[in-house]
Amino acid sequence: MVYDEPRKVRELIRRGELSRPTCGLAPGYAQANLVILPRELAFDFFLFCQRNPKPCPVLEVLEPGKYEPVLTARHADIRTDVPLYRVYKNGALTGEEKDISSYWRNDLVTFLIGCSFTFETALIRAGISLRHLDEGKNVSMFVTSVPTIPAGVFSGPLVVTMRPIRREKVVRAVQVTSRFPAVHGAPVHIGDPAKIGIRNLAKPDYGDPVEVKDDEVPVFWACGVTPQAVALKSRPPLMITHSPGYMFITDLLDEDLSVL
Amino acid sequence: MVYDEPRKVRELIRRGELSRPTCGLAPGYAQANLVILPRELAFDFFLFCQRNPKPCPVLEVLEPGKYEPVLTARHADIRTDVPLYRVYKNGALTGEEKDISSYWRNDLVTFLIGCSFTFETALIRAGISLRHLDEGKNVSMFVTSVPTIPAGVFSGPLVVTMRPIRREKVVRAVQVTSRFPAVHGAPVHIGDPAKIGIRNLAKPDYGDPVEVKDDEVPVFWACGVTPQAVALKSRPPLMITHSPGYMFITDLLDEDLSVL
Repeated sequence: MVYDEPRKVRELIRRGELSRPTCGLAPGYAQANLVILPRELAFDFFLFCQRNPKPCPVLEVLEPGKYEPVLTARHADIRTDVPLYRVYKNGALTGEEKDISSYWRNDLVTFLIGCSFTFETALIRAGISLRHLDEGKNVSMFVTSVPTIPAGVFSGPLVVTMRPIRREKVVRAVQVTSRFPAVHGAPVHIGDPAKIGIRNLAKPDYGDPVEVKDDEVPVFWACGVTPQAVALKSRPPLMITHSPGYMFITDLLDEDLSVL
Repeated sequence: MVYDEPRKVRELIRRGELSRPTCGLAPGYAQANLVILPRELAFDFFLFCQRNPKPCPVLEVLEPGKYEPVLTARHADIRTDVPLYRVYKNGALTGEEKDISSYWRNDLVTFLIGCSFTFETALIRAGISLRHLDEGKNVSMFVTSVPTIPAGVFSGPLVVTMRPIRREKVVRAVQVTSRFPAVHGAPVHIGDPAKIGIRNLAKPDYGDPVEVKDDEVPVFWACGVTPQAVALKSRPPLMITHSPGYMFITDLLDEDLSVL
């Protein structure tokens, strides 16, 4: 079985034949975070993303009720083409689903938000190894003391990912990720975790801890968990997201998301 | 009188003491196109801009009824700080105003969209002269045969600006403007105007004609007139914009808008 073409992978997912995390599927193509909200919250959420592009890099937004992307994946169906969804009601997780067709309403607005898989691939190609991948772990994520810029009903702290980078590779890591602003882009902080309100690198708020060795520097990037955390805080009557690691696979090449 | 600081320039404009085009004011700071629309059209217009970032690079959007920018110009007032506004009703120009406070409503949504002054400054600094500026003219603008990506009620052709660039400087012009995606960015077309549906470079649809000499190539960039033209086509009950050349001066440095 070939898992190379995004369209074919999405078809397998749609038919329920590929229920796994999407890391490694359709290599070279960009994957996206999914946030679906009712129309009455959509404008404010769109504003929040525009004001906070590092944690919330918008790849595409669909008109209310639409479930076929026009920019990132023609002929896809947002209700069926993600392997696992999470459904939240009034801010509480009520279930995980493989298909959200039965939840669909004409007032639901879909946001596709850039995911760090793209820049991690670029880092690896630049000879910068990533410990969480080497060890088969989830990346470490931390809630910081850095506020996002509020918009309408949405506000909350910036969530970041941390990757230990060898001291002599830090500048290169900044350069490589700067080329990908649509997938979180350049780091938001380099070095001392306390400066952004992180007390203990061994105790991430989400994901798994990884060691930071003596010749390494902790480097922090804005994280796509931020918009989900901020949206949940507002307790929307209905919100649907992808389940962590089970992303939406787009037709965009990673390189389509680069600047220069 | 010093016209260097954006805040001070905006104060003079607000008091009616500086009623002139903004080109050359607050040098080094980014200026913005203004589009104000009623709330019921704002989500679709925001979507249109997200899908067409080259002609419609959004710098900031304000919540309905808000007139103080939070990202681009704290303490400014969008109703008074532009030297000249245009008011349209049902798609028809009904007047030019120096102050739109009397039109203000709690459902109006303000969009600030990047303007090419920033990248023109960068081109000049890179030793690329711009004929329309040398000759004190407005840049040539053309309606193309290239469609934008529709969003909701909004659709229409891409409008471009044309600048003649000396053959040996074309690559440099691409490089320099690529650094500024938030102000239209890299060209959309280089060379033969007919390829994008332009018949006669001597007859622009907007602005003034300029000569293209034998050792020059016509280079085309997406133009901020596009979103205004597209919005007007939908005949919104009320739409307010800046008057051409009378822009909103932000507190952002030109360099704040660069990537890499």
